[in-house]
Amino acid sequence: MPADPPIARLLISCPDGPGIVAAVSAFLFERGANIVTSDQHSSDPTGGRFFMRMAFALEGGEQAWAALERDFGEQVAGPRGMDWRLARVVGPRRVALLASREDHCLLDLLWRASRGELGAVVAVVISNHETTRAAVEAFGVPFVHVPVAPDTKAAAEQAMLEALVGARCDTVVLARYMQILSGDFLARAGAPVINIHHSFLPAFAGADPYRRALERGVKIIGATAHYVTEELDAGPIIEQDVARVSHRAGVDELTRMGADIERLVLSRAVRWHLEDRVLVDGNKTVVFT
Amino acid sequence: MPADPPIARLLISCPDGPGIVAAVSAFLFERGANIVTSDQHSSDPTGGRFFMRMAFALEGGEQAWAALERDFGEQVAGPRGMDWRLARVVGPRRVALLASREDHCLLDLLWRASRGELGAVVAVVISNHETTRAAVEAFGVPFVHVPVAPDTKAAAEQAMLEALVGARCDTVVLARYMQILSGDFLARAGAPVINIHHSFLPAFAGADPYRRALERGVKIIGATAHYVTEELDAGPIIEQDVARVSHRAGVDELTRMGADIERLVLSRAVRWHLEDRVLVDGNKTVVFT
Amino acid sequence: MPADPPIARLLISCPDGPGIVAAVSAFLFERGANIVTSDQHSSDPTGGRFFMRMAFALEGGEQAWAALERDFGEQVAGPRGMDWRLARVVGPRRVALLASREDHCLLDLLWRASRGELGAVVAVVISNHETTRAAVEAFGVPFVHVPVAPDTKAAAEQAMLEALVGARCDTVVLARYMQILSGDFLARAGAPVINIHHSFLPAFAGADPYRRALERGVKIIGATAHYVTEELDAGPIIEQDVARVSHRAGVDELTRMGADIERLVLSRAVRWHLEDRVLVDGNKTVVFT
Amino acid sequence: MPADPPIARLLISCPDGPGIVAAVSAFLFERGANIVTSDQHSSDPTGGRFFMRMAFALEGGEQAWAALERDFGEQVAGPRGMDWRLARVVGPRRVALLASREDHCLLDLLWRASRGELGAVVAVVISNHETTRAAVEAFGVPFVHVPVAPDTKAAAEQAMLEALVGARCDTVVLARYMQILSGDFLARAGAPVINIHHSFLPAFAGADPYRRALERGVKIIGATAHYVTEELDAGPIIEQDVARVSHRAGVDELTRMGADIERLVLSRAVRWHLEDRVLVDGNKTVVFT
Repeated sequence: MPADPPIARLLISCPDGPGIVAAVSAFLFERGANIVTSDQHSSDPTGGRFFMRMAFALEGGEQAWAALERDFGEQVAGPRGMDWRLARVVGPRRVALLASREDHCLLDLLWRASRGELGAVVAVVISNHETTRAAVEAFGVPFVHVPVAPDTKAAAEQAMLEALVGARCDTVVLARYMQILSGDFLARAGAPVINIHHSFLPAFAGADPYRRALERGVKIIGATAHYVTEELDAGPIIEQDVARVSHRAGVDELTRMGADIERLVLSRAVRWHLEDRVLVDGNKTVVFT
Repeated sequence: MPADPPIARLLISCPDGPGIVAAVSAFLFERGANIVTSDQHSSDPTGGRFFMRMAFALEGGEQAWAALERDFGEQVAGPRGMDWRLARVVGPRRVALLASREDHCLLDLLWRASRGELGAVVAVVISNHETTRAAVEAFGVPFVHVPVAPDTKAAAEQAMLEALVGARCDTVVLARYMQILSGDFLARAGAPVINIHHSFLPAFAGADPYRRALERGVKIIGATAHYVTEELDAGPIIEQDVARVSHRAGVDELTRMGADIERLVLSRAVRWHLEDRVLVDGNKTVVFT
Repeated sequence: MPADPPIARLLISCPDGPGIVAAVSAFLFERGANIVTSDQHSSDPTGGRFFMRMAFALEGGEQAWAALERDFGEQVAGPRGMDWRLARVVGPRRVALLASREDHCLLDLLWRASRGELGAVVAVVISNHETTRAAVEAFGVPFVHVPVAPDTKAAAEQAMLEALVGARCDTVVLARYMQILSGDFLARAGAPVINIHHSFLPAFAGADPYRRALERGVKIIGATAHYVTEELDAGPIIEQDVARVSHRAGVDELTRMGADIERLVLSRAVRWHLEDRVLVDGNKTVVFT
Repeated sequence: MPADPPIARLLISCPDGPGIVAAVSAFLFERGANIVTSDQHSSDPTGGRFFMRMAFALEGGEQAWAALERDFGEQVAGPRGMDWRLARVVGPRRVALLASREDHCLLDLLWRASRGELGAVVAVVISNHETTRAAVEAFGVPFVHVPVAPDTKAAAEQAMLEALVGARCDTVVLARYMQILSGDFLARAGAPVINIHHSFLPAFAGADPYRRALERGVKIIGATAHYVTEELDAGPIIEQDVARVSHRAGVDELTRMGADIERLVLSRAVRWHLEDRVLVDGNKTVVFT
């Protein structure tokens, strides 16, 4: 899909019922908003949940926006019990990347951010290894080294949280970060956390998926980008993709081929998230692409 | 996408501008219509063309529908210069299949229709060869043999038109029909005509695409379903798909692999067309899947 | 890959080591065999296992073949501890299809066999339901109804074994056969058994995979053809393929889309098996396509 | 496929006939060569052309290799009229990258070379624009700026040839180099030249393929890596891949999506070429992956 003009996106989720589209679109039209794209989804027309994303432009300054937000809450969202969010595009989003030794996802996101593909800046890279420092700093991005050892994990997570806060990040991306984050960290991060898992989930959750894929003799490998929850590799899936493999490929070859899938899948998921195209529906996602 | 309940679909195309979604959805809401799915597309938010498909249910009988259709034209569509169509689902659509010797697309569509996948009945099969008669009649579908020779083409097309009219078909599908239809036939058919071309158009338009694909040494072959226009293989594309091939594949193997792509691509295109998901935009299509 | 001419295929698996290709190709060359295609694979050049498939033609009658087979065993295969098999193509292979209510895989294989795509005849269809009898018999294939109830399972399997033996089948294909076969049946069947599972294994092994895929919110669904072993859905995988799905698809839509993948995956696996392209390597397969 | 150990690859193409595999493998075996992988292809078993690639290790120093090469020519290749080449892996291959303003293919190849994926070093980057100098030099690779204007083309090509010779390159890759190279340049380059074209050839050869794809309304876009010949975009295709697009994508979006395909397709083609997996067969290629 094309990038939206720098405007606002209204995200709604609520019990389905008649008249929602009419109410929302009439409200926006009367306020002079110019709807650019609109997407809806109902999990079930009778008794299901309704999801909507509208991207629109609005003339007028801060006051107009504040009034629109207040009035929408009072007049439309409140009466219908909507979960909703008005995401104004007032500047690039700020993303933190967490990485370990592998650089393919990390560099790919840095490169895409630098050429404007993500509509976001990478505000900080945090890694438990020093290996990628030079490559990160070449993009002009601050690199924070937070080593993690079994007995320093709590302190390390505290240091990472401080780095996230200091960089004012609204999204955290695990670009092949190989440490498991605690539930406490996730709760305090104050931002959605997106992970890339190097398998086609739910197959091969956990460690060493390429080796296990080889042992099972699968003919296709994959990668999965998902929101991180406390349960490992079990959060809502944002995007997946796959590649065909033959009996000739060993673990090294699967790892090399997989790296290409991982960076594509993760970059799509991150871009869609940053463009407010992903709505969470329990443990699933609605993705308006 | 899921099949719609048996309801109506409103298809709109018009110059883009503010308030269209609000106007249409308010109109339908006030009439008691229950919108099930809604899709929009703007070819360009400033000065482009706007396309919309809304599927909705409506309580009430024929009169309610007639009033809704009349009022929509007068109150909404007319003032905005809309091209529009209200497609009510009052029974299965009626499709004619034209075929020659190859049976793979023909049988696949007959089988899908018979299990209810298309929301349509195959009202007649017309072929310039007798070879598939038994297989067609086993589905309980009338088979009409209209042989075509260079000097009998006009008469043959006349006979085919009569068969189409007799079967009251609203869609014509060329299931690997190997004769070129005249512009006169297309004009008089009174129904959209969908063709499957056995290449990834615009590559290898015209005759013998698999042989030419082999000679060019492509690594991927494809198939294209498109609306038929007078210019050969140049009409609006509805759907395409591809398959990877290796240097090992000769023409026979390409033809065999291609047959699998052809029947998938054609069946998707026909289903989307019959579900009113395809809107023509000049020589392109908007497909709301 | 192209179909082989009607000849013989030599399948070999043995510990890897120097000189195997030289020994085999020299043996065949000296006997006047004309090698048409040759494929090799080593699971590991140092200490791994070596797999080879050679398709070749040979002048001379039964005696020449018998001598070749005897001498190869004595002179080449024996000294090197080869597992090997000489598969002569002396007529179409004979396949049994087991089915239940779903007809998509069943009809697809019947249709492909009838047009010569499989190099095999379907010798018998056995089903625990009567629903597909007419469609099967229209292909001229015997239909055997063997109902299965919890307390008649052993007798049912006995009846099925008798039908297999009576039809002299060398391959058994479960074309969405929904009963679990006992280890005893598998042992006594005397032929490889190929199954299609309607998920991307190892994800969603067991019952109701499309519903579970929907609940997990995956973005891609798949199908897996594998040899049947006693452990459910755990045998060596022959082929897999996938299709992308969106949040719009419910279970019915996943099932419909999945049916298209299933029949493609199963038909490829069956064809490759019948062309002796699949060599089993523990719980994995080497597939020479 | 897995990377070969650092050994030698024997590439053969000759008229097909009996005994070739036996002769070659016996020759290598007798010399103590340990064949690691072996691939064959016959364009037609009767009267076609035969292609073979064998990767093997050999004990012994320079003298053993020299003797093997001389004897193979005299004893095996000469009598059978083989085109052949013994490619010893004695160090990384040396690649020149030609680029213009776009950096995605350029950076991707530099990154893959730096992590050892290509088995090659990028010996020089030549560009007609200065824009990517810093990024290139960050990889420690020499950057040569050769501006091209209509009236300086001959001089520019001369400067580029000198840079190629100075860098002792055995492969030239056009990583979205936007100037057309003369036949004279190609003849004098003394190395194969690989190009990435941003369409699914033969569709949309020439300029501005994404805009033309949009205008034609295709549902899938692609990229093609091919050897460069004098005829524009008509050389032997090495690799192609595609991505599905919707009616929502404008030219910018197609360009962004296409960039991801281009860099994957080009990197695969370059790697296969550098591993001697690509044999040219007239205007087609045999690719042993």
